[in-house]
Amino acid sequence: MTRRDLLRMIGMTAGSAAMYQAMTSLGFAAESNFSGMPSLGAAPKGTSVLILGAGLAGMVAAFELRKAGYSVQVLEYNDRAGGRNWTLRGGDRYTELGGETQHCEFDPGLYINPGPWRLPYHHRGILGYCKQFGIPLEPFIQTNYNAFQHSSKAFGGKPQRYRAVRADYHGHIGELLAKVTNDGGLDAEVSKEDQQKLLASLQWWGALDKNYKYTKGIESCDRRGFNRDPGGGLSARPELSTPTSLADLLDSELWGALPIGDIYELQQSLLQPVGGMGRIGEAFARELGPLIRYRAKVVDIDQDDSGVRVSFEDSGTPGSRHQASADWCVCTIPLSILGEMPIKVGQPMAAAIAAVPYASSVKIGLQFKRRFWEQDDQIFGGISYTDLPIGNISYPSDGFQGSGKAVLLGGYMYGPDAMRFTAMTPAQRIREAVIQGSQIHPQYPAEFDNGISVAWHRSPFTLGCFGMWTEAMREQHYDNLCAFDGRIVLAGEHASYLPAWQEGAVTSAHDAIDRLHRRAIAHGAKT
Amino acid sequence: MTRRDLLRMIGMTAGSAAMYQAMTSLGFAAESNFSGMPSLGAAPKGTSVLILGAGLAGMVAAFELRKAGYSVQVLEYNDRAGGRNWTLRGGDRYTELGGETQHCEFDPGLYINPGPWRLPYHHRGILGYCKQFGIPLEPFIQTNYNAFQHSSKAFGGKPQRYRAVRADYHGHIGELLAKVTNDGGLDAEVSKEDQQKLLASLQWWGALDKNYKYTKGIESCDRRGFNRDPGGGLSARPELSTPTSLADLLDSELWGALPIGDIYELQQSLLQPVGGMGRIGEAFARELGPLIRYRAKVVDIDQDDSGVRVSFEDSGTPGSRHQASADWCVCTIPLSILGEMPIKVGQPMAAAIAAVPYASSVKIGLQFKRRFWEQDDQIFGGISYTDLPIGNISYPSDGFQGSGKAVLLGGYMYGPDAMRFTAMTPAQRIREAVIQGSQIHPQYPAEFDNGISVAWHRSPFTLGCFGMWTEAMREQHYDNLCAFDGRIVLAGEHASYLPAWQEGAVTSAHDAIDRLHRRAIAHGAKT
Repeated sequence: MTRRDLLRMIGMTAGSAAMYQAMTSLGFAAESNFSGMPSLGAAPKGTSVLILGAGLAGMVAAFELRKAGYSVQVLEYNDRAGGRNWTLRGGDRYTELGGETQHCEFDPGLYINPGPWRLPYHHRGILGYCKQFGIPLEPFIQTNYNAFQHSSKAFGGKPQRYRAVRADYHGHIGELLAKVTNDGGLDAEVSKEDQQKLLASLQWWGALDKNYKYTKGIESCDRRGFNRDPGGGLSARPELSTPTSLADLLDSELWGALPIGDIYELQQSLLQPVGGMGRIGEAFARELGPLIRYRAKVVDIDQDDSGVRVSFEDSGTPGSRHQASADWCVCTIPLSILGEMPIKVGQPMAAAIAAVPYASSVKIGLQFKRRFWEQDDQIFGGISYTDLPIGNISYPSDGFQGSGKAVLLGGYMYGPDAMRFTAMTPAQRIREAVIQGSQIHPQYPAEFDNGISVAWHRSPFTLGCFGMWTEAMREQHYDNLCAFDGRIVLAGEHASYLPAWQEGAVTSAHDAIDRLHRRAIAHGAKT
Repeated sequence: MTRRDLLRMIGMTAGSAAMYQAMTSLGFAAESNFSGMPSLGAAPKGTSVLILGAGLAGMVAAFELRKAGYSVQVLEYNDRAGGRNWTLRGGDRYTELGGETQHCEFDPGLYINPGPWRLPYHHRGILGYCKQFGIPLEPFIQTNYNAFQHSSKAFGGKPQRYRAVRADYHGHIGELLAKVTNDGGLDAEVSKEDQQKLLASLQWWGALDKNYKYTKGIESCDRRGFNRDPGGGLSARPELSTPTSLADLLDSELWGALPIGDIYELQQSLLQPVGGMGRIGEAFARELGPLIRYRAKVVDIDQDDSGVRVSFEDSGTPGSRHQASADWCVCTIPLSILGEMPIKVGQPMAAAIAAVPYASSVKIGLQFKRRFWEQDDQIFGGISYTDLPIGNISYPSDGFQGSGKAVLLGGYMYGPDAMRFTAMTPAQRIREAVIQGSQIHPQYPAEFDNGISVAWHRSPFTLGCFGMWTEAMREQHYDNLCAFDGRIVLAGEHASYLPAWQEGAVTSAHDAIDRLHRRAIAHGAKT
């Protein structure tokens, strides 16, 4: 099994896949990290900065530079701020490349986040802005022991509960290692004293019985659950459940999803803004107000020793041509789009811009008439994983036990599956997601209400989901992408070691404006 | 290491310890389980039921029996309903045995739950009532990878992050088992084909490198975290962290807390009512209204062939004596108190009542001036475990990043530690919790504001925390405790296989009233 197969098989999510890419290109040098919010000090008097793109990187740059006293303007292609920080709610409309317009018909209060949807506890930059803007956060449930793990090729296609797969995997490997230990197989590796401690730990950790076996019994049921739960009174006795054999478990490959919640970026506590991830972009947009010019499609970026000049169209009046200029420019336009546009930079940055392809991804939101996953299956939040193309089914972490309709994430795809779904019409994507999801939740067809999808390669403002670095690419191009070229500096998740994560956008903006500020001071106040 | 040592060492929580006790006394018979909410059908005309205790079991019984048409009255010792379902908020007052009165001085919206504080996803009875009464639920975070695991005897007393302990334990045992597999040590146990699958799984699960080693590197940091996190721009490169050795890890015993979140009752998704667990008892009390008579201290329970007669004092007028009578009685008074009172039942039930001792437990709520655990340590909800007597520090799962004061659970003790804390004055308990907690959070002394504690053995209405069954005790007494004695039936967590859990109270009430209803029908309508 190759790593690629593995990642595909476990339905890896954007962040973790990206993390892996990022980390395979890490060196050991430790130069810096997040050291708190920027504190630039005063801008040289009269210095202006033009910011391209009102996604998180652009708005972070604008917010901080304005605070330092720079004269700031932001040009944004969309008629809203946030970029991939975006929540689709009832009444919203989205037109993808190809011309199809979808109308979101979710009930009030329901939403999906087509882009980022999780805030790791250690992403201190983005969390810092949430605090600064008073955006309420709530837990995002990633790992749910009662969610399903489903393989169309194992257990007759019957979804298994996460808790059972986990308990059985731990139990079986605990039993194997305990047996080897008791048989003297670790004598060369582990001291006799540590072997005793190891055995004690394996017994508790793996839920082994007093003979260090993982068997049907109270220990295993305390982890994997019962066939019938214990209760009260005279009708109280539980029925024990039977573990899956090691061979069946290994063959099912369902163990693949077990460590997802152990990945640094996906560990509890994950957080989300109450009401949708878009609350963050919306808050920045409120803060910046008229500094952002919407519907401004940048078509040319020019610079010389004295400053930067950008041409843009007002997309409300096609063919119109406007100019904006400033002393400095922070460009956050995704490389997928920037690469198609004239920009006056040297060969190193130009080559870097051209080098990075964009990941393909599709997310599908489905509204159902009721919360059958809670009412029928006792699944409150979390994610079910499947080997079907939809990859994930993620249940809302809020509004538990509500009696109205509810929205779940009915598909979240990368790679070839995402390409196939991107090629479908929006209506076909929804239909396909409902058909596939029915294998995990047979309630789907009867309860389905409506749906909406975002295929990121059809997104006019990014032409893809996030920049996909490889180790070789990063070695050759990353520093050239991030370094100042004259009066232009780039920022965004693509200019970070945290591709796809909002924290990459935030920290790359912090890094860029810190360097911009030092350059501006070196140039001195304008006369 | 004995099981007792183990449970103590890992600071086991009420529910899981109780679960263990319960499960060691399980048989294999499968008689019944939770089968949905009761649907009793119509009561025989004119039939009355007297219910003793307005805790959850009593109120569930009253609610369902009234719905079926029974004439119901509830006698409650306290001046509030809920029993151990209880939330302490600012302005509340609590007088414990010994006469000390504590005034809760928490800020508005802040609270602790001295009793139950978590709702497992599979506790369908209690969750069903939350739904029925429209009580909003939110996630309760149990496992937090960034919370601390602390041993005063390991790592120089320096708290470790859960994620590092977990990653290192999985990594080391994964490496050991992979090595044994590659060396042919499993050839007798596992087929060659399955060995290949096992190796692939261990590599991914244990974050092993390409040589199946758990080493300092990108794989291990993807689980245990970095010394410096990756970021954006030119100051982006992370610094790798170094795994703890297997010997140090085993010796620290910090592995003991790893599986707590794997225990059936403590698995994600755990839920809590918004605003405190007491919301459930409060909702029942609103539903039942004047059916509950408060400050009614039962002093005698009598019965004959025609009905039940109960004597009680109004605790507002000591020495006063009142009578209540009914056709049937559901008695939910904790056995610790019931055992001290005259009750006319046969020897089997009397012996059962006398047999079950009550667990000792102490909970301590501490208000701090700010959320330093979030602001300084990036801990959002979850539980830190320590080998100090306080056992746990649990952080609020709500109100993240709030700028005001906040309350955490600064101690949660069982057994001998709880006895020692019970013997202290309330002020001493708080002082001791602050001193001990400072070893995990040095911010404690500077940030401490006020605190409150509940030592359950000093609780006038339970004289302990929950009924502690042993296997032998259960075999001898459980059925006798639950069986009808004439016109009296008992209910409560003590009459369940789920001691300490609210679900035990709910399901035991369901079981009791189902049997009561069948008896009442057999007796027919009153003339």
